[in-house]
Amino acid sequence: MAFSFQLQKKCLHTQARVGTWSTPHGLVETPRFMPVGTLATVKGLTPAQLETTGAQMILANTYHLHLQPGETIIEAAGGLHEFMGWNGPILTDSGGFQVFSLSELRKIREIGVTFRSPRDGRIIELTPERSIHIQNALGADVIMAFDECPPGNADYDTVAAATDRTYRWLERCIKAHQRPHDQALFGIVQGGIYPKLRSDAVSALIPLDLPGYAIGGVSVGEEPALVRDIVKLTTPLLPVSKPRYLMGVGTYKEMVMAIASGIDLFDCVIPTRFGRHGTALVAGERWNLKNAQFREDFTPLDPECPCYTCQTFSRAYLNHLVRSQEMLGYILLSLHNVTELVRFTQRIREAILKDRFTQEFGHWL
Amino acid sequence: MAFSFQLQKKCLHTQARVGTWSTPHGLVETPRFMPVGTLATVKGLTPAQLETTGAQMILANTYHLHLQPGETIIEAAGGLHEFMGWNGPILTDSGGFQVFSLSELRKIREIGVTFRSPRDGRIIELTPERSIHIQNALGADVIMAFDECPPGNADYDTVAAATDRTYRWLERCIKAHQRPHDQALFGIVQGGIYPKLRSDAVSALIPLDLPGYAIGGVSVGEEPALVRDIVKLTTPLLPVSKPRYLMGVGTYKEMVMAIASGIDLFDCVIPTRFGRHGTALVAGERWNLKNAQFREDFTPLDPECPCYTCQTFSRAYLNHLVRSQEMLGYILLSLHNVTELVRFTQRIREAILKDRFTQEFGHWL
Repeated sequence: MAFSFQLQKKCLHTQARVGTWSTPHGLVETPRFMPVGTLATVKGLTPAQLETTGAQMILANTYHLHLQPGETIIEAAGGLHEFMGWNGPILTDSGGFQVFSLSELRKIREIGVTFRSPRDGRIIELTPERSIHIQNALGADVIMAFDECPPGNADYDTVAAATDRTYRWLERCIKAHQRPHDQALFGIVQGGIYPKLRSDAVSALIPLDLPGYAIGGVSVGEEPALVRDIVKLTTPLLPVSKPRYLMGVGTYKEMVMAIASGIDLFDCVIPTRFGRHGTALVAGERWNLKNAQFREDFTPLDPECPCYTCQTFSRAYLNHLVRSQEMLGYILLSLHNVTELVRFTQRIREAILKDRFTQEFGHWL
Repeated sequence: MAFSFQLQKKCLHTQARVGTWSTPHGLVETPRFMPVGTLATVKGLTPAQLETTGAQMILANTYHLHLQPGETIIEAAGGLHEFMGWNGPILTDSGGFQVFSLSELRKIREIGVTFRSPRDGRIIELTPERSIHIQNALGADVIMAFDECPPGNADYDTVAAATDRTYRWLERCIKAHQRPHDQALFGIVQGGIYPKLRSDAVSALIPLDLPGYAIGGVSVGEEPALVRDIVKLTTPLLPVSKPRYLMGVGTYKEMVMAIASGIDLFDCVIPTRFGRHGTALVAGERWNLKNAQFREDFTPLDPECPCYTCQTFSRAYLNHLVRSQEMLGYILLSLHNVTELVRFTQRIREAILKDRFTQEFGHWL
């Protein structure tokens, strides 16, 4: 069996848990943050640098890769791992979220979604079958079901219809999936901010006995308190023996709250996006490295961080690079930020193993 | 003695030579290409990546570093090596070339040059003493005399006056130099396109017995044939026992021609600038990686190149990154291009050692 998820430990006071997940391209120790490599590159980092961050699994985006360079080229290259030089586990999303959030002129029908390519203007149709076909060609270890993502403020009936459709699309995804032996297809729990729709969605998913489950539709434009409530309600309903992935979430606080509810996996573009804007994640805070306070600060960014940036350079040098708009500044901050979030989940993992999760991370809850 | 230059081998047919140059921060095996790290960073590359290119010595720019972050901060950081995390040899230029080529509103007097800072508009005065003072604070292994750089098309009298002034400024540089024990001050041969001025300049420099000599004023807007003639005339006049540096030159052909005349060191921004524009230097050619011909080319950029880029990725992946304007594309191409030019000079070095320079590189002459 290419995939197996072993639960190693459960927290005594919360739903937090530690797992070891075996995939065709290696182990993922959960809970764990996954950096995002939208276009088959985690922006600014080489795979060799990425490996030093402790990231075990990374993401890539089906929507973006379909537009450029196209799945045919990636398949001809031998798949995504070979193409981008990353030999660890990879997860691709379905493209659904991007079609709904980035595209103009989209038309949603039962068959799927048509939209205008922002790249060359041509009309593209994405269906559950097409999404899985593309993801089969890309060859990631984990692929996601194609779902309908209604806006965060949609009313009950709209969300209910989208959630039902997401279920019907999932059934089509399962049928279309050509590589179940080496690609795990995750189902996605939708349902917006409506507890009943969320729990109904989970109930519908469980009998399908998928290799993993994701919670979607919580990352954009929602209040943290709302995210927590949804995750708190939904996660414990999911099968204990399968990995659980909270899509698009990756702030310190949200991750601690979600882990306390039993989430295993996270992804977010924050660490590299912040890096490109000269912002560092340090000890739960956001620091703008351009600030004058760092000009003559010759200490490391975070003396306790093992990353190359913190081990080699001073805040003063990073300040200089960011002020000079030097590429290296963005690279070094991205490297640190990814390390920081991976390490944060790794530290939580170790705390759970030592029965110290609530003691060490309870102040975030 | 912190510096010693050992000649290991002379070519039987040309003036080409192989040397080993000891500096406070390590050996430089000549002939050798030096990458440029204008603002205390070779654009896009970490010092760890830079080390893998085989670059032994790198450049930084006094003019740029004086403007941002200022030499005071770099000195307080423990000097340039410590500040930028590069423990190998470094050379700083004097700022002269940039004042004359980049600044507006400059006024040249015997005392020095005043110009308007392009950064904040303030008026800055750079004199021979000031340039050396800044370079002493930066702490590079090799520092350059502050010279007057007349435009490439200047007439004989203008160039003659500038060359004389450059000599008087050099005498002031030598007097101002506070760290001759651990920073080697190089004199610069000016003289434009006029053979007599060039040879007079060399004659004046020789009695000063400096630890090294540079040929300046040949990199901008000159015909390659003119560069060759000037270098061919000037280089053999310089002391045999001192390193010789041809400033701002770094194309394949110019380097081979200059090495055949006895040049040991080169610098040029081409490899990183080309990298940032999606251009690779391969086997003496310039390839635009954006071209459609590379879209489905799954071979390495240069199968014989030992760099991380060529060892890990395909031309198709680089094409994808450049088309997507992904930072990683610029990084990987810069890494390759720097490796390529360093390796080119390294291969010439090995050819000279084996008495095969003219056989292997004669087609460039």
